[in-house]
Amino acid sequence: MKVGVVGLGLIGGSIAKRFRELGKEVFGFDSDRTILDFVKLSGDIDDELTDDKIGKCDYIFLAISPDESIDWLRENSKNLNSKTVVIDCCGTKRKICKEGFEKAAQYGFTFIGGHPMAGNHKGGFKNSSGDLFKGASMVLVFKERKDFKLMVEVKTTLEELGFLKIIVSSAEEHDEIIAYTSQMPHLVSNAFVKSKTALISDRLISGGSFRDFTRVAYLDEDMWTELFMENKDNLKYELDILIEELNRYRSAIEAGDETNLRDLLAEGKNRKVEVEKYGTGTLGK
Amino acid sequence: MKVGVVGLGLIGGSIAKRFRELGKEVFGFDSDRTILDFVKLSGDIDDELTDDKIGKCDYIFLAISPDESIDWLRENSKNLNSKTVVIDCCGTKRKICKEGFEKAAQYGFTFIGGHPMAGNHKGGFKNSSGDLFKGASMVLVFKERKDFKLMVEVKTTLEELGFLKIIVSSAEEHDEIIAYTSQMPHLVSNAFVKSKTALISDRLISGGSFRDFTRVAYLDEDMWTELFMENKDNLKYELDILIEELNRYRSAIEAGDETNLRDLLAEGKNRKVEVEKYGTGTLGK
Repeated sequence: MKVGVVGLGLIGGSIAKRFRELGKEVFGFDSDRTILDFVKLSGDIDDELTDDKIGKCDYIFLAISPDESIDWLRENSKNLNSKTVVIDCCGTKRKICKEGFEKAAQYGFTFIGGHPMAGNHKGGFKNSSGDLFKGASMVLVFKERKDFKLMVEVKTTLEELGFLKIIVSSAEEHDEIIAYTSQMPHLVSNAFVKSKTALISDRLISGGSFRDFTRVAYLDEDMWTELFMENKDNLKYELDILIEELNRYRSAIEAGDETNLRDLLAEGKNRKVEVEKYGTGTLGK
Repeated sequence: MKVGVVGLGLIGGSIAKRFRELGKEVFGFDSDRTILDFVKLSGDIDDELTDDKIGKCDYIFLAISPDESIDWLRENSKNLNSKTVVIDCCGTKRKICKEGFEKAAQYGFTFIGGHPMAGNHKGGFKNSSGDLFKGASMVLVFKERKDFKLMVEVKTTLEELGFLKIIVSSAEEHDEIIAYTSQMPHLVSNAFVKSKTALISDRLISGGSFRDFTRVAYLDEDMWTELFMENKDNLKYELDILIEELNRYRSAIEAGDETNLRDLLAEGKNRKVEVEKYGTGTLGK
């Protein structure tokens, strides 16, 4: 099997390393020539993913940003052939899937939207590892859920990468949910850490909740700006809900209204119970 | 050594169990007669902490709410003698310390404010354990930091309970910091879980950040209402900062202002670096 990996950062580097460990032939590309040369020397790819090799790949993984992925498809779709499966790894799915499905229809290759639920706030090839996806989930967006042979093949390939669970979703569902389960925690954590109290706080005067709330405050601002802007409708929806909720607590506290505050807290507690019980979702079912 | 424990929930139960394991004589009390009888039968206390035994204790731990602790001091200070050290375990410190220091001066015993940085969202005696405080931190508030013999004795006793680090603070500093490091994460987590998206979210479409943000949403609304109301000035201060920050992100996203959003995210990222580097605080130093 021949695999192409575009973008040799944390995700792309980890894909390349894992497939090499499994003995696949791996071609890699990175727009940063220094990185590409380094990875060639380190032996984590067999060769550079040049134009002539693009058409020979069984799989091509786009491990670059949504906008870069779109640019790549516009430039390289003409070099792909009908047996190639292109999977992107972007954190939002609507925009890239629209482009990918269009180009796939036009040039006769297969495009599948993908979002590996794995990462590390320390990005880059130097932090990549063949084990990164071990036990993780992968979301897939198919144009149509009809070609079961393809679906099974892709599932097998992703399991070889280490993924434990493959979740099939629509791009719309994915973006709606990811705004809440991932983008919001990153945004709120990044905002939370700005209180000046953070600088006078002895970490010893804190429980695990402080550690939890500040863990993902450190993030790549370029990547997340792009992801947030691409999902602005869903993100704004969630932000409005949270800000409104926080204002309700704030009012109760300011007014010294214990009954109201207790009701708000009980409501959240009950919701948490409900989420634990039923919140495994309907997605992909 | 004789130890009295008032309130046999998670904290008090764990104190009683640990001291019993160490062979101390432990007297316990709980306003819930069923709990008290159960703990007497289970052998985790030697006997009930009756009025006549209060004066015989070397240490008395108040493991009840701030208001209950104040009531206890008002009723029982007259039974205490000059060698008894009373330590409360409340999550806020200003109100209880004011009362404790006054009563101690009036009746001639020693009061020290305490906040064990340990817990579990599953409360109650049934979840208590002699190991609960192993490796945890304990904040102490002394009326004056002059009696070094006392400070060393208390430190030794708390280390026997399992505490690794004793942090000496003022009640004001403690309440300011705890609003940010503990109360805010609990409040925000409790509010965060209310989005309806929580109910349709497949937990597989989420990274660790979702788990982090919803972990402490489940809380005892009675206890936290009391703690929040007692610390309303500090909590409102932090809530205002967070709500204002979230509104800044919201405006940037709504306006599609990528430069502004990137600046906000970079600001949070840099603050996180600063916190990791310098945020060990000045407290108690």
